[in-house]
Order: sequence, then C-alpha cells, then structure tokens
Amino acid sequence: MKASQFFISTLKEAPADAEVVSHRLMMRAGMIKKLGTGIYTYMPMGLRVIRKVEAIVREEMNRAGAVELTMPVVQPSEYWEESGRFQAYGPELLRIKDRHDRSFVIQPTSEEIVTDIARQEIRSYKQLPKNFYQIQTKFRDERRPRFGLMRGREFIMKDAYSFDRDLDSAKGSYKVMADAYRRIFDRFGLRYRAVAADSGAIGGDVSQEFQVIAATGEDAIVYCPDSDYAANMEKAEALAPTGPRPAAAKPMTRTPTPGKATCEDVAELLEVPLSTTVKSLVLATDLLDEAGEVKGAEVWLLLVRGDHDMNEIKVSKVPGLDKGFRFATTAEIEDHFGCKPGYLGPLNLKQPVRIVADREVAVMADWICGANEVDFHITGVNWGRDLPEPDAVADLRNVVAGDPSPDGKGVLAIERGIEVGHVFVLGTKYSKPMNATFLDEAGKPQFLEMGCYGIGITRLPAAAIEQNNDERGIIWPDAIAPFTVVVCPIGMDRSAEVKTAAEALYGQLLAAGVDVMLDDRGERPGAMFADWELIGVPHRVVISDRGLKEGQLEYQHRRDTAATKVSAAGIAEFIAGKLAAA
Amino acid sequence: MKASQFFISTLKEAPADAEVVSHRLMMRAGMIKKLGTGIYTYMPMGLRVIRKVEAIVREEMNRAGAVELTMPVVQPSEYWEESGRFQAYGPELLRIKDRHDRSFVIQPTSEEIVTDIARQEIRSYKQLPKNFYQIQTKFRDERRPRFGLMRGREFIMKDAYSFDRDLDSAKGSYKVMADAYRRIFDRFGLRYRAVAADSGAIGGDVSQEFQVIAATGEDAIVYCPDSDYAANMEKAEALAPTGPRPAAAKPMTRTPTPGKATCEDVAELLEVPLSTTVKSLVLATDLLDEAGEVKGAEVWLLLVRGDHDMNEIKVSKVPGLDKGFRFATTAEIEDHFGCKPGYLGPLNLKQPVRIVADREVAVMADWICGANEVDFHITGVNWGRDLPEPDAVADLRNVVAGDPSPDGKGVLAIERGIEVGHVFVLGTKYSKPMNATFLDEAGKPQFLEMGCYGIGITRLPAAAIEQNNDERGIIWPDAIAPFTVVVCPIGMDRSAEVKTAAEALYGQLLAAGVDVMLDDRGERPGAMFADWELIGVPHRVVISDRGLKEGQLEYQHRRDTAATKVSAAGIAEFIAGKLAAA
Repeated sequence: MKASQFFISTLKEAPADAEVVSHRLMMRAGMIKKLGTGIYTYMPMGLRVIRKVEAIVREEMNRAGAVELTMPVVQPSEYWEESGRFQAYGPELLRIKDRHDRSFVIQPTSEEIVTDIARQEIRSYKQLPKNFYQIQTKFRDERRPRFGLMRGREFIMKDAYSFDRDLDSAKGSYKVMADAYRRIFDRFGLRYRAVAADSGAIGGDVSQEFQVIAATGEDAIVYCPDSDYAANMEKAEALAPTGPRPAAAKPMTRTPTPGKATCEDVAELLEVPLSTTVKSLVLATDLLDEAGEVKGAEVWLLLVRGDHDMNEIKVSKVPGLDKGFRFATTAEIEDHFGCKPGYLGPLNLKQPVRIVADREVAVMADWICGANEVDFHITGVNWGRDLPEPDAVADLRNVVAGDPSPDGKGVLAIERGIEVGHVFVLGTKYSKPMNATFLDEAGKPQFLEMGCYGIGITRLPAAAIEQNNDERGIIWPDAIAPFTVVVCPIGMDRSAEVKTAAEALYGQLLAAGVDVMLDDRGERPGAMFADWELIGVPHRVVISDRGLKEGQLEYQHRRDTAATKVSAAGIAEFIAGKLAAA
Repeated sequence: MKASQFFISTLKEAPADAEVVSHRLMMRAGMIKKLGTGIYTYMPMGLRVIRKVEAIVREEMNRAGAVELTMPVVQPSEYWEESGRFQAYGPELLRIKDRHDRSFVIQPTSEEIVTDIARQEIRSYKQLPKNFYQIQTKFRDERRPRFGLMRGREFIMKDAYSFDRDLDSAKGSYKVMADAYRRIFDRFGLRYRAVAADSGAIGGDVSQEFQVIAATGEDAIVYCPDSDYAANMEKAEALAPTGPRPAAAKPMTRTPTPGKATCEDVAELLEVPLSTTVKSLVLATDLLDEAGEVKGAEVWLLLVRGDHDMNEIKVSKVPGLDKGFRFATTAEIEDHFGCKPGYLGPLNLKQPVRIVADREVAVMADWICGANEVDFHITGVNWGRDLPEPDAVADLRNVVAGDPSPDGKGVLAIERGIEVGHVFVLGTKYSKPMNATFLDEAGKPQFLEMGCYGIGITRLPAAAIEQNNDERGIIWPDAIAPFTVVVCPIGMDRSAEVKTAAEALYGQLLAAGVDVMLDDRGERPGAMFADWELIGVPHRVVISDRGLKEGQLEYQHRRDTAATKVSAAGIAEFIAGKLAAA
C-alpha cells in the first residue's frame, strides 16, 4: 500500500475522554473515530488490524474443525423469551420494535439462535459433535462504556458454539477449542495467560479465560511461577493453612476504639498488624413457606481476616448460601447484633446467626473483632475459649501474592490482565429450555450438550496496545500490525535516486508477500517518523540520498533505540530475516 | 474442504413461503435459514458464496483506490436529523432507544456518518479526491420483505462514498467507480447490463444501475442491441416521431360507448386499434400566495396514447410539474371536466386546464378520447381543427420494444433485470445540510461534492441463481460457487482404491489452489449427485472402482448433459484447463 492511496490521520493530542493508553493511542493514530458513547468507526488504519485479528482467528477456528456461518444482528425476541434471557438480561440488551410493533433484540451473543439452528438441523448422534462460529457485530448497552474499544457498546466478537452428545464429549470439544485458542494467542505475539475461571453449575475444569497481560488490565489474574497453575481471582483457591491453630495467649478484653469503624483504623489505633483483625460481613437468606412465600430470614455472619478481601463467587458456593443470598437489612443487623455496622462481631449476639469463618480466620488465635457496641472492639478473642467453633469453615477470600499454589508447587503471584477470550462448557443451559435434542443410538431424544467460545475481536487490538506501547506510541506485534514494514523515503519528491530506490524496495517486498507501506506523502522526516512510531509499524526502512551514496539504507525496529545501516543490495534479505525471526 | 468437516443440509422441498426460484433453491441447498420475516442466517454453504462476492468486490474497490473502513451498525440519530433523513426516511428506518432513552437508528446506508467523518478529516483540497467504503450489515424495515435474500430486511451491502472538490472531479470519481463495477460484474461471471438511471437534480449522465439479466427480475431494462445504449425504464427516452402529423381524414363524432371507461374497452367496442385512442391523466399543482398558503390549484391534463404507459419520473420533469404535483381531486375533475373519470378528454371543458401531450399524441390524427360525458367518447379528433395545439409537448411515456434508440443506432429492446449495484453522483445533498466543507486554494470553504456507490452483497447470490438454474438446482459461475470442484468418490468406505484416488486428487487440486470439496460422507451416488446438483458446484469429478479399473474418472460440468471420461493420470491438468476456460 502507498500512503497516497491510503488514509492516514494522526493527532498530536488525544481527546479528553480517552482515559487509558490504548484508547488515547488508537485515537491519536487515527485507528478509530468516536461516533457516540461506546460506538466507534473503525478507520482504515484500525480496520487493517482488526482484519488481521479476524484472519488468524478464522484460520485456527477452521483448522479446529469449526464451521463458519453468520447469524443475524437483529434477532426476534421470541427466541430470547424461550431461553429466559429476554427477561434475565437486563438493560444491557438493546431491545427494538419494528414497524409492526414486533419485538427484536440486537445480538450481544447468539446462544439462542444457534440453539434454534441446532434443534432444526441436528437430528441424530451421527451428526455430532458440531461446532458453529461467526465473526460478527454485537451490541451491549453497557452502563458505563469506556476505554475506547476495550469496553465499547458495539463491537466485533468471534463466538463459537459446540454441540455434543454428552458432557464427556462436550469436554472434548472444549479442549479442542482451548487448544485452538492457545494457537491463536500464540500467533498474535502477545504475552497472555489461559486462566481457570469459575464454571458455575457445571463444575470441574471447564471454563478458562484468556487474559492478555497488562499492568492496566481490569482483571487480577493469579498464577504460580513454578508451575502451570493459573486462575482468575474469582476462581483461585486459597488453601487452608497447614499449621495448627496457636494456643490462646491473651485475655479477651473489651477495648474502646472510638470512631474506628474499619479494621485498618482499629489496627492503627491499637498498633497491631492488620492481620490480627477480623472483619464481618452480614448476609441473609430468605426462608420460604410451602407456598413459596417469604416467612422469615436467616442471618449469616461471614468472617475474613482484616487484610483479606471477600470473594463473592466463593461466598456464593457456601452450602446454604448457594441458592442465593442478599445483604442483610439494617433492621436485621440491629435485631441480631444490637449494633449498627462498623462494630459488628460474633460475640454478644442478641439472636443467633450462622457463622462462617474463612479458612484463615478459623486457625487464628488472639484476634480482634467488633464488640457489637458502637466505639468498642474486643481483643484477644479465641475460638473455643470465648465463643464456639464456627458453624462452617470455607474459602471465602481472594488469594494474595505469596499464598501457596493450589497445585502444591510453589507460591502464587498476581498480575493484571485484560480478558480477550473465554471458553466455557454450557451444558444444557440453552438446549433444555429450548428443547434442542438429538436421537441417540436407541432412538431416544437427548438434550444437546453445548459449549461456547468467545474472542473479543475489537478488544484484542486495545489489549495488544496496553501491553505494547511507549511514550512515542504503539508497538504492534508483526502478526497484527496494520503494516509490517514501512518504507520511509526522505526527499522522494526532490531526489530521483531516492524515489527509484524506494519504489524498487516497495515492489520487491510486495512481491515477497510482505505487507509493506510506502510513505510517499512527501512529509519531512521528523513528522513522518513520528507518525509511524505513533501508528506502531514494527519495521522501518529509511532511504535517503546520503545513505544511497554509501550504498546503504537504515533499518530500525520499533523497539530499537537506534537505526542499523544495511547495504541497499541486501535489504530485502535482511528484512526477510527480521520477519522470520519475529 | 471435506464434507465430513463441513455442514451440508439439503432439503427435498422448499418452504411454502419461498415464491421465487432463488429463494427456493437457497433454502433447499441449505445456504440460508429463516430466522424471522426478511431475516436470515447465512449458513456455511451460503456464507462461502457471500465471502467470495465480498472478496471480489473488496479487491476491485481497493484497486480503484477506495479505502475500506467500517462504520457502526447502530448510529446516533442526531446525524440523521442533521441531514433531514430521520424524518424523511419513513418506517423503513429502524429506530431504537438505548437505556438512557437516547435515539439511534440501525444503518440502512451511511451517508450521514461518512459525511461526518469527511467534515472532520478533510480539511484541504490537497486531500481530495477521497473514496471510503465498507462491507457491512444493513437493515431496512421493508413493508413487504420477500424473495429471501432478494428483498430481505437485514442484508450486507458494500457502500462507497466519494468526496471531490467540484462536480467535474466528482464525475471523474464516478467514472472510476463505474469502471470498477464493470470489472466486478465481469468477474462474477454473470450476464448484466449497466443501465443509465435517472440522476434527479444533478442531471447529466451520472447515475447507473447494474442489473443482472433474469426473466424473473423486478425491473424492466431498455437497451439497443445494435449499440451501447442501455437505461432503466424510468430514464429511457421515447424520441419524438420523425414524420409529420397526418392530415385530418375523419369528422369529429360524438360516439356512444356505454360502460366502456378504458381505452382497451373502447377500442374493442369500436373495432379500432388501441393505438388510435388517447388516455387522460388529470393532475393538479397548488398555487401559493406570498405567505406560502395554498390559494388555489391549477389542473393539468396529460395525454398519452391508449397503448402506452405513463412514466411518472418523466411527468415529474415537465416544466410546471417539476416542483411537485398531485392527483387532482374528484371535485377538481368535475369542476373542470363536468364529468367523472373514465370519459375525460380535452374537449368540451367547463374550465380551462393545461394540456400536455406526449410526443406521440402530438402527431396523431383522427384520434379517440373521452367526451367529458358519461358513456360517450369522441372519435376523429384532430389538433388544430377540433381543439387548439396542446400547451406543451413532452416525453411522458415508457418506451416500448421497437421504439427507436435515443442514440439513433437502431431500435430498443426490453428485458428484465435485478438491480444489484448502483453508482450515483450525490452532489452536495449531504454536505450542505451537514456543513461538510474543505478549503480550496484560496483558503475559501467549499462544500464537498459527493458520490455514492452500492452493491447488494447478499442480493447478488440470489440474482445469480435467478439467472443460472435448472430443474435440478443452482448452476454457479466459477467465481462465486461455494466450491469450484466437487470430488465424488463412489463407495469410498468400501474401496481402498477409490479412497486413495479421491484423497490424492483432492490433495492435488488443493495444492493447485483449487477450491475443492471432497464428498467423504459415504452417501449413495444418487443422493450425492442430487445434493451437488442442487447446491450447484460447477465442476464434478466422479471416482469409481469401475472407472479406476480402466484408468478413468468421469468429469461433468453442471451444464453438461453427460459425463466425459478423463484419464485418471490427466485429470488435474484437465480440470485446470476447464477452470482456466471458465
């Protein structure tokens, strides 16, 4: 491509609403253009990146035996009513009425439609397994769209859906997809981790997120540097401490802590480590009568160490809370604790509550908690001596760096990631309500076992930039750069030699199948280099009169701090070597 | 591709609502699947065709210097209010509210958005001309979606938009696009015509439709077999007759025609050719006072020969009617003609009307028209003798086969077509209301001159089928066939020789870059052949044990009535020759 035949539009400054570096750089590099909140035009420079992402995804999906189709963007809502998602989805689902007042949605994903296709098309076990995918425009009416393509409302997603005869086979299809995803993300040239994610009702190891590592990522991901273990924060297990509970050493003491309603404040006041404090979370579960009416509520007190964070997914798996729970009301709290939040604890209760201690809290001695009395805490509390053992002990908290790895092979580390892919066994979540069955060998109808597999096609470039940028701009991996090589002739309009050499090199690289850009705009060197450094083309060749006199060109990788002189005669071979090495 | 890794789903019968052959065959061949009225999933087999159409369009658009981008499907309606189309578009425009009750539309085209991009990005004449295009999902809430992909609601369209400094330059960009369109349609391998279309306010030769010739087409297209002349029916000019008006030969006679209110009935009753009758159309234009209020109306009588059809586009260009007109009310007709419709004519008027005669009517003698009296016509009417010459003479009618070609090079013929492309100079229709300007050499802002260029990507396969089918199914041109060659092994599961030969040929063709399908499903020959004839793959090779014993395979083109024996050794070369010839 020649610059004169393309569209290049760079900006010195990013708009004020661009908060993260990928958003700022995509705007400045002229890759996207905002049309409305969370709605962007993919400009020619950005579209090239997206098309390269799509091509790699398509190639690997095909290789993995998935078959491409395209489902409609506008979908009749009756299918969504069948699955129950029309009601369940909430305001993120964009709903429309057509001219005849019939109801439609704009697809955020396509489980319903693909399940409808499967229930019509798949009749026999002989047709299984089957995997359909599409790369198609989606819409989610996000409450807070932000960060450019990172969390837009309209976006492009690759969504694949597998159909299997049973859960074992579905797990096989899942593995094929997870393997394909590894190949895809390897080819993108990004640092990423496949992390175990919560798999909900299915259980087992059948949900993984693919996270591009970036300090600015929204997700915390947990991994073990000494093993393969990796999980997202929701999923990563905090093992039970292995040592025994220390013996009680201090007396239980009612201690004034005026105005100190948080563990941090209490620890500071009492000059003790935060890890000696215990924080309380009060939940409630409704008790129903035989007619399904609420006849009362049970109140729960969950305890984690003051320096730990409660993990809501783990809480939702505690027996008794796994059918649903809510935060306790102020009235319920005062009824049971005789105190308002900030000074709550498991002692001096007005009415009994169910106490669940985090594994770590269960082995603490001489700990500190609220006294159920405003401006007072209790120090030197000990299980068994001062209060009964907890009703239950469970993993309730987020892991922290240094926790032992659940696979027993070292300690955990934590880094930030951006979720760009997700593979998931769905089970019969859609096939049951939509009655999508096949006939097994015995001629008996069975529900199709499904899996779903997404890649955020338009989020991927943003994630790549969050991982690969510097003060001058973007640094694309070769595989998804808008152009792999840029040829920058200096004074092309003045020097016939430069023009001839530039056109020759351009032709040579094109013929070799290199995605090369010839900047024939006639910009001055400074502006030209700044543009391409901002846009982030990984390989640059500069052609100048001075260099040509010595028979030399200048090569610089976007990550290099200085240029390398290369003989004009050997440049094509030199570039080929660089591209092969990338 | 091997059939076992693909998805093939053919039907014996098409659903009852599939009225046209392309719809029936696309459903039966498993190319599309209906999700709702006018909304279809592109199934794997159909998507392959669409992708091939897209690839050819993209290649030629790029070659013509257009730059690809992708504009959002969901567009804030404020842009549409700026252009005035939000109000003007009517119910075909699908309107949405988001969670914050802000108004959006789903793009039917993207003039507004691309004009917004241009007004931000194009600052100087130095950046012109520019042409942006996208291949993207569109939605039109058609009143009567039908014929499958032919007139769907959701569809894929390639839409390009050019920006130029002046109308001359815009006509240059238009010509570049029209030439690219010819290359595109040539490559599709379809019989088509580029026909002149009405260019509205711009005037001149700056609008063409690309029509795929098919007997089932919705549009009548006019061409001259002896020259390049081609136009759509709206545009094709009916030349003025060259001979003089014959002299009056009959007396004017009030003739009873009881109950005969149409020219056809009158001609039959009087036993005269229909071409001796004249039919009347009564229109009205409102007269406005200085404040723009309607103060009265002028009534017009338009006359065309009884065997001719009135052309509304031509009527709208008659001086005096070119600012807008309406049908006259019954009251206006009775006030001026003293009679109800069915027996109207230019004689015996109660009040004067403006009379416009078609060019053909203006040279008629001894003609027949209504008497302005129920159940009576007048025969033997002659201009000049019985009534004054008409106030105006104009081309008011549709041409008919045999009319002289406007280029003077023969006579016109008429055939049916399906519009699959349109190129059009827009002028400043969008740039003016949206204030999209650039600075000229003098630093003065000028409105951008625009053009727009569409191709119905998903309509094209339907049009191709309407043109190319037989009782067994579709017959694809090579360029857009879902697969170019299908290898059908007979008894692949029983015969190792057949299996080996089939796999070898498949590998050989793949390596030669042929888009080949190996049907390894193990179907019986009859069912297998029927499937591929229905699907319409143009080239078929059959491999059987019997043939292999003689060292031969069977080749058959989808249009051939019988197979040709080809030596197994020479088959790849034979196929290459067939593909090169296609």
